[in-house]
Amino acid sequence: MKLYGAPNPAPNPRRVRIFLAEKGVSIPETFVDMRKREHKAPEFREKNPAGQIPVLELDDGRVLSETVAICRYLESLYPAPPLFGRDAFERAEIEMWIRRVELVMMVPVGMFWRHAHPYTAALLTQYKDFGESNRERTVEAMTWFDRQLRDRPFIAGETYTMADICALTTVDFAAFIGLPMPEEAEALRAWRARVSARPSAAA
Amino acid sequence: MKLYGAPNPAPNPRRVRIFLAEKGVSIPETFVDMRKREHKAPEFREKNPAGQIPVLELDDGRVLSETVAICRYLESLYPAPPLFGRDAFERAEIEMWIRRVELVMMVPVGMFWRHAHPYTAALLTQYKDFGESNRERTVEAMTWFDRQLRDRPFIAGETYTMADICALTTVDFAAFIGLPMPEEAEALRAWRARVSARPSAAA
Repeated sequence: MKLYGAPNPAPNPRRVRIFLAEKGVSIPETFVDMRKREHKAPEFREKNPAGQIPVLELDDGRVLSETVAICRYLESLYPAPPLFGRDAFERAEIEMWIRRVELVMMVPVGMFWRHAHPYTAALLTQYKDFGESNRERTVEAMTWFDRQLRDRPFIAGETYTMADICALTTVDFAAFIGLPMPEEAEALRAWRARVSARPSAAA
Repeated sequence: MKLYGAPNPAPNPRRVRIFLAEKGVSIPETFVDMRKREHKAPEFREKNPAGQIPVLELDDGRVLSETVAICRYLESLYPAPPLFGRDAFERAEIEMWIRRVELVMMVPVGMFWRHAHPYTAALLTQYKDFGESNRERTVEAMTWFDRQLRDRPFIAGETYTMADICALTTVDFAAFIGLPMPEEAEALRAWRARVSARPSAAA
């Protein structure tokens, strides 16, 4: 198997690297040069018609994209430690939390990046007022997660899971683009310190 | 078990109803009055702190929200016919397609609804120019799906899956709010006719 990805701070390829580090597994990764738009080139779109990274290519040539789909497949190959849950209810609960991380927190962070950040201004038409409004949406999202984390150590409960990987890559990317966690979000800050102390966070 | 939902055209509760109809299973559903903001009330937030529907409540009181998580759990209880795939690779592939439906198509439809539709104008601060720009994003998304559907009958391949349910509820809701499929999107139109002809689509 091989991965097509990009170095940090790109949040999505990092998700897969953290996941693999938690599993103690290594898969070679080829970096796609996003500044040269290699991910939008026809050869790359044969692997992923959406023109996005990361992509996992199997030895038989089949390909998968979308981080959570890639990691769920890798979970089937490397089941220990379980990062998607141990039974049907846990699997559903963790998926619920992954979706909340993405829909509640990642969407406003992504919209700020897309519509208010100087880096993307050169590439795309921005709606700046809307983009800036996502600063407050992100604070609300982080405050909501802060409340959820007051009674447990990890996003989905007592155990570190894929939901923590999705959330960590989101808050780290948010900080990188100028959307830090609110000072008052003490439980969220403690959670971030907790998951960042794991060796996998260096991936 | 019981469901908390809302009648059509709310797209998310409909997803679960279509899923159950495909399985030939019936679960009682209590409608939450969204115009009265019952889904944002403290009692409901005890079931789903995100204040959204649908919610599945198990007989032991445990709750799940987020449609795909709910349906994945129901798939474990009612495995036939499989709507999330038959092996690890198929499961990952279908998840990849579900995510594409949501991130590529559902996000612009949702942003149009949130920022350009008169219904939500009364409830929320809108960024109208941005909202209107999602009309074109939605056409692009539907055109992209049209291309993917030229060589196969269903979103994820040869078989009807959860990805079709997510896509159908999205295009139907889009049409309802004034975002019809482009005339030229013939494969997408043929797909919509195909999945709408299934009895489950009436759910």
